[in-house]
Amino acid sequence: MPLSRLDRQIAFLVEADKLKNTIRATELCDNSRYENSAEHSWHLTLYALVLADQAGPDVDLPLVIKMLILHDLVEIDAGDNPIFGDLDHTAIEEQEKRAADRIFGLLPDDLRDSFRAIWDEFEAAHTPSAQFAKSLDRFQPPIQNLQSGGGSWVDFEVTEQQIQERVGSKIARGAPALWEYARTRIAEFFAANAGK
Amino acid sequence: MPLSRLDRQIAFLVEADKLKNTIRATELCDNSRYENSAEHSWHLTLYALVLADQAGPDVDLPLVIKMLILHDLVEIDAGDNPIFGDLDHTAIEEQEKRAADRIFGLLPDDLRDSFRAIWDEFEAAHTPSAQFAKSLDRFQPPIQNLQSGGGSWVDFEVTEQQIQERVGSKIARGAPALWEYARTRIAEFFAANAGK
Repeated sequence: MPLSRLDRQIAFLVEADKLKNTIRATELCDNSRYENSAEHSWHLTLYALVLADQAGPDVDLPLVIKMLILHDLVEIDAGDNPIFGDLDHTAIEEQEKRAADRIFGLLPDDLRDSFRAIWDEFEAAHTPSAQFAKSLDRFQPPIQNLQSGGGSWVDFEVTEQQIQERVGSKIARGAPALWEYARTRIAEFFAANAGK
Repeated sequence: MPLSRLDRQIAFLVEADKLKNTIRATELCDNSRYENSAEHSWHLTLYALVLADQAGPDVDLPLVIKMLILHDLVEIDAGDNPIFGDLDHTAIEEQEKRAADRIFGLLPDDLRDSFRAIWDEFEAAHTPSAQFAKSLDRFQPPIQNLQSGGGSWVDFEVTEQQIQERVGSKIARGAPALWEYARTRIAEFFAANAGK
Protein backbone atom coordinates (compact mmCIF):
# COMPACT_ATOMS: atom_id res chain seq x y z
CA MET A 1 0.00 0.00 0.00
CA PRO A 2 1.43 3.41 -0.88
CA LEU A 3 2.12 5.77 2.00
CA SER A 4 -0.56 8.38 2.68
CA ARG A 5 0.27 12.08 2.59
CA LEU A 6 0.27 12.19 6.40
CA ASP A 7 2.49 9.07 6.59
CA ARG A 8 5.08 10.87 4.43
CA GLN A 9 4.86 14.05 6.48
CA ILE A 10 5.42 12.09 9.70
CA ALA A 11 8.25 10.01 8.17
CA PHE A 12 10.05 13.27 7.33
CA LEU A 13 9.50 14.65 10.84
CA VAL A 14 10.84 11.43 12.38
CA GLU A 15 13.89 11.55 10.10
CA ALA A 16 14.47 15.19 11.07
CA ASP A 17 14.88 14.06 14.70
CA LYS A 18 18.39 12.90 13.72
CA LEU A 19 19.55 16.52 13.46
CA LYS A 20 19.59 16.50 17.29
CA ASN A 21 22.58 14.14 17.01
CA THR A 22 24.60 16.30 14.59
CA ILE A 23 27.33 17.94 16.67
CA ARG A 24 28.72 21.36 15.77
CA ALA A 25 32.12 22.92 16.51
CA THR A 26 30.56 25.63 18.71
CA GLU A 27 30.20 25.14 22.46
CA LEU A 28 27.25 26.24 24.57
CA CYS A 29 27.73 29.60 26.32
CA ASP A 30 28.40 27.80 29.63
CA ASN A 31 31.17 25.72 28.03
CA SER A 32 29.50 22.48 29.17
CA ARG A 33 29.30 20.71 25.80
CA TYR A 34 29.20 21.16 22.03
CA GLU A 35 26.01 22.41 20.45
CA ASN A 36 23.90 20.25 18.14
CA SER A 37 22.44 21.50 14.87
CA ALA A 38 18.79 21.20 15.97
CA GLU A 39 19.12 23.43 19.03
CA HIS A 40 21.37 25.76 16.99
CA SER A 41 18.57 26.08 14.42
CA TRP A 42 16.08 26.96 17.16
CA HIS A 43 18.46 29.54 18.59
CA LEU A 44 18.82 31.15 15.15
CA THR A 45 15.05 31.50 14.75
CA LEU A 46 15.08 33.35 18.08
CA TYR A 47 17.95 35.53 16.82
CA ALA A 48 15.75 36.40 13.84
CA LEU A 49 12.82 37.42 16.05
CA VAL A 50 14.99 39.44 18.44
CA LEU A 51 17.19 41.09 15.80
CA ALA A 52 14.48 41.74 13.21
CA ASP A 53 15.29 45.46 13.46
CA GLN A 54 18.69 44.70 11.89
CA ALA A 55 17.10 43.41 8.67
CA GLY A 56 17.08 45.61 5.59
CA PRO A 57 13.76 46.79 4.07
CA ASP A 58 13.63 44.00 1.46
CA VAL A 59 13.98 41.17 3.96
CA ASP A 60 10.94 38.87 4.34
CA LEU A 61 11.20 37.85 8.00
CA PRO A 62 8.79 34.86 7.92
CA LEU A 63 10.84 33.53 4.98
CA VAL A 64 14.08 34.08 6.93
CA ILE A 65 12.63 32.04 9.79
CA LYS A 66 11.64 29.22 7.41
CA MET A 67 15.19 29.25 5.99
CA LEU A 68 16.66 28.98 9.48
CA ILE A 69 14.34 26.11 10.45
CA LEU A 70 15.34 24.16 7.33
CA HIS A 71 18.92 25.27 6.67
CA ASP A 72 20.84 22.53 8.50
CA LEU A 73 18.66 19.48 7.74
CA VAL A 74 21.16 18.33 5.08
CA GLU A 75 23.66 17.83 7.93
CA ILE A 76 21.77 14.66 8.89
CA ASP A 77 23.67 13.07 5.98
CA ALA A 78 26.50 15.52 5.35
CA GLY A 79 27.46 16.37 8.95
CA ASP A 80 28.50 19.79 10.17
CA ASN A 81 31.47 21.32 8.36
CA PRO A 82 33.19 23.70 10.80
CA ILE A 83 33.88 27.03 9.14
CA PHE A 84 37.49 27.03 10.36
CA GLY A 85 38.11 23.45 9.27
CA ASP A 86 40.05 22.48 6.16
CA LEU A 87 37.13 22.30 3.74
CA ASP A 88 36.67 21.00 0.19
CA HIS A 89 33.80 23.30 -0.76
CA THR A 90 32.94 21.53 -4.02
CA ALA A 91 32.73 18.14 -2.34
CA ILE A 92 30.63 19.54 0.51
CA GLU A 93 28.25 21.21 -1.91
CA GLU A 94 27.74 17.94 -3.81
CA GLN A 95 27.23 16.00 -0.59
CA GLU A 96 24.70 18.51 0.73
CA LYS A 97 22.75 18.48 -2.54
CA ARG A 98 22.49 14.70 -2.40
CA ALA A 99 21.34 15.01 1.22
CA ALA A 100 18.68 17.56 0.21
CA ASP A 101 17.47 15.21 -2.56
CA ARG A 102 17.08 12.34 -0.10
CA ILE A 103 15.73 14.18 2.95
CA PHE A 104 13.28 16.59 1.27
CA GLY A 105 12.36 13.65 -1.01
CA LEU A 106 10.68 11.96 1.95
CA LEU A 107 7.94 14.62 1.79
CA PRO A 108 4.85 14.87 -0.43
CA ASP A 109 5.88 16.52 -3.73
CA ASP A 110 4.44 19.99 -3.00
CA LEU A 111 6.27 20.27 0.32
CA ARG A 112 9.45 18.74 -1.15
CA ASP A 113 9.50 21.39 -3.87
CA SER A 114 8.70 24.36 -1.62
CA PHE A 115 11.22 23.36 1.07
CA ARG A 116 13.89 22.71 -1.53
CA ALA A 117 13.31 26.13 -3.10
CA ILE A 118 13.71 27.77 0.33
CA TRP A 119 16.92 25.82 1.04
CA ASP A 120 18.31 26.59 -2.45
CA GLU A 121 17.59 30.31 -1.94
CA PHE A 122 19.39 30.22 1.42
CA GLU A 123 22.38 28.41 -0.02
CA ALA A 124 22.69 30.73 -3.03
CA ALA A 125 22.62 33.79 -0.73
CA HIS A 126 21.63 36.15 -3.54
CA THR A 127 18.43 37.58 -2.04
CA PRO A 128 18.24 40.02 0.90
CA SER A 129 16.33 37.43 2.98
CA ALA A 130 18.97 34.74 2.40
CA GLN A 131 21.79 37.19 3.12
CA PHE A 132 20.19 38.22 6.40
CA ALA A 133 19.62 34.56 7.37
CA LYS A 134 23.28 33.79 6.56
CA SER A 135 24.39 36.78 8.65
CA LEU A 136 22.56 35.41 11.68
CA ASP A 137 24.01 31.93 11.08
CA ARG A 138 27.52 33.47 11.15
CA PHE A 139 26.81 35.87 14.03
CA GLN A 140 25.61 33.36 16.64
CA PRO A 141 28.84 31.28 16.93
CA PRO A 142 31.07 34.29 17.80
CA ILE A 143 28.53 35.34 20.44
CA GLN A 144 28.75 31.82 21.94
CA ASN A 145 32.56 31.78 21.67
CA LEU A 146 32.83 35.12 23.46
CA GLN A 147 30.78 33.62 26.31
CA SER A 148 32.47 30.21 26.48
CA GLY A 149 36.06 31.48 26.56
CA GLY A 150 36.90 31.08 22.89
CA GLY A 151 35.20 27.80 21.92
CA SER A 152 35.92 26.90 18.30
CA TRP A 153 38.49 29.73 17.98
CA VAL A 154 40.66 27.95 20.55
CA ASP A 155 39.98 24.44 19.17
CA PHE A 156 40.93 25.50 15.62
CA GLU A 157 43.67 27.99 16.65
CA VAL A 158 41.91 30.72 14.73
CA THR A 159 43.35 34.22 14.25
CA GLU A 160 41.41 37.46 14.36
CA GLN A 161 42.22 37.87 10.67
CA GLN A 162 40.62 34.51 9.81
CA ILE A 163 37.45 35.49 11.66
CA GLN A 164 37.31 38.71 9.67
CA GLU A 165 37.69 36.81 6.38
CA ARG A 166 35.49 33.76 6.92
CA VAL A 167 32.84 35.18 9.24
CA GLY A 168 32.97 38.97 9.34
CA SER A 169 32.45 39.53 5.64
CA LYS A 170 29.30 37.37 5.67
CA ILE A 171 27.82 38.95 8.80
CA ALA A 172 28.51 42.43 7.39
CA ARG A 173 26.82 41.62 4.11
CA GLY A 174 23.35 41.10 5.62
CA ALA A 175 23.62 42.85 8.99
CA PRO A 176 26.47 45.40 9.12
CA ALA A 177 25.70 46.68 12.64
CA LEU A 178 25.92 43.13 14.01
CA TRP A 179 29.40 42.70 12.56
CA GLU A 180 30.44 46.06 14.04
CA TYR A 181 29.14 44.81 17.42
CA ALA A 182 30.95 41.47 17.15
CA ARG A 183 34.16 42.90 15.65
CA THR A 184 34.80 45.21 18.60
CA ARG A 185 34.26 42.45 21.14
CA ILE A 186 36.34 39.94 19.18
CA ALA A 187 39.21 42.47 19.09
CA GLU A 188 38.92 42.87 22.88
CA PHE A 189 38.88 39.09 23.35
CA PHE A 190 42.03 38.57 21.26
CA ALA A 191 43.81 41.49 22.95
CA ALA A 192 42.99 40.04 26.39
CA ASN A 193 44.07 36.53 25.39
CA ALA A 194 47.19 37.40 23.39
CA GLY A 195 50.03 35.02 24.15
CA LYS A 196 47.91 32.73 26.34
CA MET B 1 26.49 53.26 31.58
CA PRO B 2 23.03 51.95 30.65
CA LEU B 3 22.95 48.99 28.30
CA SER B 4 22.31 49.79 24.64
CA ARG B 5 19.34 48.28 22.81
CA LEU B 6 21.66 45.81 21.08
CA ASP B 7 23.34 44.90 24.40
CA ARG B 8 19.93 43.97 25.82
CA GLN B 9 18.99 41.96 22.72
CA ILE B 10 22.24 40.00 22.94
CA ALA B 11 21.93 39.51 26.71
CA PHE B 12 18.52 37.90 26.11
CA LEU B 13 19.89 35.66 23.34
CA VAL B 14 22.76 34.55 25.58
CA GLU B 15 20.33 33.80 28.44
CA ALA B 16 18.15 31.80 26.01
CA ASP B 17 21.11 29.47 25.41
CA LYS B 18 20.28 27.88 28.79
CA LEU B 19 17.17 26.27 27.30
CA LYS B 20 19.56 23.77 25.66
CA ASN B 21 20.18 22.43 29.18
CA THR B 22 16.50 21.97 30.12
CA ILE B 23 15.79 18.26 29.86
CA ARG B 24 12.36 16.91 28.92
CA ALA B 25 10.68 13.60 29.72
CA THR B 26 10.59 12.59 26.03
CA GLU B 27 13.41 10.57 24.48
CA LEU B 28 14.82 11.04 21.00
CA CYS B 29 13.37 8.68 18.38
CA ASP B 30 16.53 6.54 18.51
CA ASN B 31 16.18 6.12 22.28
CA SER B 32 19.73 7.45 22.82
CA ARG B 33 18.95 10.22 25.32
CA TYR B 34 16.30 12.60 26.61
CA GLU B 35 15.36 15.59 24.48
CA ASN B 36 16.11 19.15 25.56
CA SER B 37 13.60 21.98 25.28
CA ALA B 38 15.59 23.98 22.71
CA GLU B 39 15.81 21.18 20.13
CA HIS B 40 12.19 20.27 20.92
CA SER B 41 11.20 23.87 20.09
CA TRP B 42 13.03 23.65 16.77
CA HIS B 43 11.35 20.34 15.97
CA LEU B 44 7.93 21.87 16.65
CA THR B 45 8.58 24.76 14.24
CA LEU B 46 9.32 22.09 11.62
CA TYR B 47 6.10 20.28 12.56
CA ALA B 48 4.26 23.57 11.92
CA LEU B 49 5.81 23.97 8.46
CA VAL B 50 5.19 20.34 7.47
CA LEU B 51 1.70 20.04 8.95
CA ALA B 52 0.42 23.48 7.97
CA ASP B 53 -2.33 21.78 5.96
CA GLN B 54 -3.81 20.53 9.26
CA ALA B 55 -4.42 24.08 10.50
CA GLY B 56 -7.94 25.53 10.42
CA PRO B 57 -8.73 28.57 8.24
CA ASP B 58 -8.33 31.09 11.10
CA VAL B 59 -4.83 29.95 12.06
CA ASP B 60 -2.02 32.48 11.46
CA LEU B 61 0.93 30.20 10.68
CA PRO B 62 3.75 32.77 11.12
CA LEU B 63 2.25 33.55 14.56
CA VAL B 64 2.10 29.81 15.38
CA ILE B 65 5.80 29.55 14.54
CA LYS B 66 6.63 32.53 16.77
CA MET B 67 4.65 30.89 19.61
CA LEU B 68 6.58 27.65 19.18
CA ILE B 69 9.95 29.44 19.15
CA LEU B 70 9.10 31.25 22.40
CA HIS B 71 6.81 28.81 24.22
CA ASP B 72 9.34 26.97 26.40
CA LEU B 73 11.71 29.84 27.32
CA VAL B 74 10.12 30.04 30.79
CA GLU B 75 11.51 26.54 31.44
CA ILE B 76 14.96 28.11 31.88
CA ASP B 77 13.72 29.04 35.37
CA ALA B 78 10.70 26.75 35.85
CA GLY B 79 12.06 23.54 34.32
CA ASP B 80 10.04 21.10 32.23
CA ASN B 81 6.92 19.74 33.91
CA PRO B 82 6.20 16.31 32.38
CA ILE B 83 2.58 16.01 31.40
CA PHE B 84 2.24 12.64 33.13
CA GLY B 85 3.96 13.83 36.31
CA ASP B 86 2.11 14.70 39.52
CA LEU B 87 1.60 18.41 38.85
CA ASP B 88 0.45 21.37 40.95
CA HIS B 89 -0.93 23.43 38.08
CA THR B 90 -1.45 26.61 40.11
CA ALA B 91 2.11 26.58 41.43
CA ILE B 92 3.53 25.88 37.96
CA GLU B 93 1.53 28.71 36.45
CA GLU B 94 2.83 31.16 39.05
CA GLN B 95 6.41 29.94 38.59
CA GLU B 96 6.20 30.27 34.80
CA LYS B 97 4.74 33.77 35.02
CA ARG B 98 7.63 34.87 37.24
CA ALA B 99 10.02 33.28 34.73
CA ALA B 100 8.37 35.17 31.87
CA ASP B 101 8.70 38.44 33.83
CA ARG B 102 12.40 37.89 34.36
CA ILE B 103 13.41 36.41 31.00
CA PHE B 104 11.37 38.61 28.65
CA GLY B 105 12.32 41.51 30.97
CA LEU B 106 15.90 41.26 29.70
CA LEU B 107 14.70 42.62 26.34
CA PRO B 108 14.07 46.21 25.22
CA ASP B 109 10.51 47.17 26.23
CA ASP B 110 8.91 46.83 22.77
CA LEU B 111 10.24 43.30 22.29
CA ARG B 112 9.46 42.36 25.91
CA ASP B 113 5.83 43.38 25.42
CA SER B 114 5.34 41.74 22.03
CA PHE B 115 6.99 38.45 23.06
CA ARG B 116 5.02 38.38 26.31
CA ALA B 117 1.76 38.92 24.42
CA ILE B 118 2.60 35.99 22.11
CA TRP B 119 3.47 33.74 25.08
CA ASP B 120 0.32 34.79 26.96
CA GLU B 121 -1.82 34.00 23.90
CA PHE B 122 -0.18 30.57 23.60
CA GLU B 123 -0.70 29.82 27.28
CA ALA B 124 -4.35 30.94 27.30
CA ALA B 125 -5.09 28.69 24.29
CA HIS B 126 -8.23 30.59 23.36
CA THR B 127 -7.35 31.56 19.77
CA PRO B 128 -7.20 29.17 16.80
CA SER B 129 -3.46 29.87 16.38
CA ALA B 130 -2.70 29.05 20.02
CA GLN B 131 -4.86 25.92 19.88
CA PHE B 132 -3.04 24.69 16.78
CA ALA B 133 0.36 25.43 18.36
CA LYS B 134 -0.71 23.52 21.50
CA SER B 135 -1.87 20.59 19.36
CA LEU B 136 1.57 20.31 17.77
CA ASP B 137 3.24 20.57 21.20
CA ARG B 138 1.12 17.60 22.36
CA PHE B 139 1.42 15.61 19.11
CA GLN B 140 5.22 15.47 18.85
CA PRO B 141 5.92 13.49 22.09
CA PRO B 142 3.63 10.54 21.16
CA ILE B 143 5.31 10.40 17.73
CA GLN B 144 8.70 10.20 19.48
CA ASN B 145 7.41 7.64 22.02
CA LEU B 146 6.07 5.41 19.24
CA GLN B 147 9.55 5.45 17.70
CA SER B 148 11.60 5.01 20.87
CA GLY B 149 9.65 2.06 22.28
CA GLY B 150 7.37 3.92 24.67
CA GLY B 151 9.63 6.62 26.14
CA SER B 152 7.80 8.68 28.76
CA TRP B 153 4.78 6.30 28.68
CA VAL B 154 7.02 3.54 30.07
CA ASP B 155 8.89 5.83 32.51
CA PHE B 156 5.63 7.17 33.99
CA GLU B 157 3.65 3.88 33.63
CA VAL B 158 1.00 5.67 31.61
CA THR B 159 -2.24 4.03 30.47
CA GLU B 160 -3.92 4.51 27.09
CA GLN B 161 -6.78 6.19 28.97
CA GLN B 162 -4.42 8.78 30.50
CA ILE B 163 -3.00 9.60 27.07
CA GLN B 164 -6.53 10.13 25.78
CA GLU B 165 -7.34 12.48 28.67
CA ARG B 166 -4.15 14.52 29.03
CA VAL B 167 -2.91 14.55 25.44
CA GLY B 168 -5.61 13.40 23.04
CA SER B 169 -8.17 16.02 23.96
CA LYS B 170 -5.66 18.83 23.36
CA ILE B 171 -4.39 17.47 20.04
CA ALA B 172 -7.96 16.96 18.85
CA ARG B 173 -8.94 20.52 19.74
CA GLY B 174 -6.56 22.16 17.24
CA ALA B 175 -5.78 19.34 14.82
CA PRO B 176 -8.40 16.54 14.89
CA ALA B 177 -6.87 14.49 12.05
CA LEU B 178 -3.54 14.38 13.88
CA TRP B 179 -5.19 12.92 16.96
CA GLU B 180 -6.97 10.35 14.80
CA TYR B 181 -3.57 9.42 13.32
CA ALA B 182 -1.89 9.18 16.74
CA ARG B 183 -4.83 7.45 18.49
CA THR B 184 -4.83 4.49 16.10
CA ARG B 185 -1.09 3.97 16.44
CA ILE B 186 -1.14 4.39 20.22
CA ALA B 187 -3.87 1.73 20.43
CA GLU B 188 -1.71 -0.63 18.32
CA PHE B 189 1.31 0.10 20.54
CA PHE B 190 -0.57 -0.68 23.74
CA ALA B 191 -2.14 -3.81 22.24
CA ALA B 192 1.30 -5.06 21.15
CA ASN B 193 2.87 -4.28 24.53
CA ALA B 194 0.04 -5.47 26.79
CA GLY B 195 1.36 -7.41 29.78
CA LYS B 196 5.01 -6.65 29.00
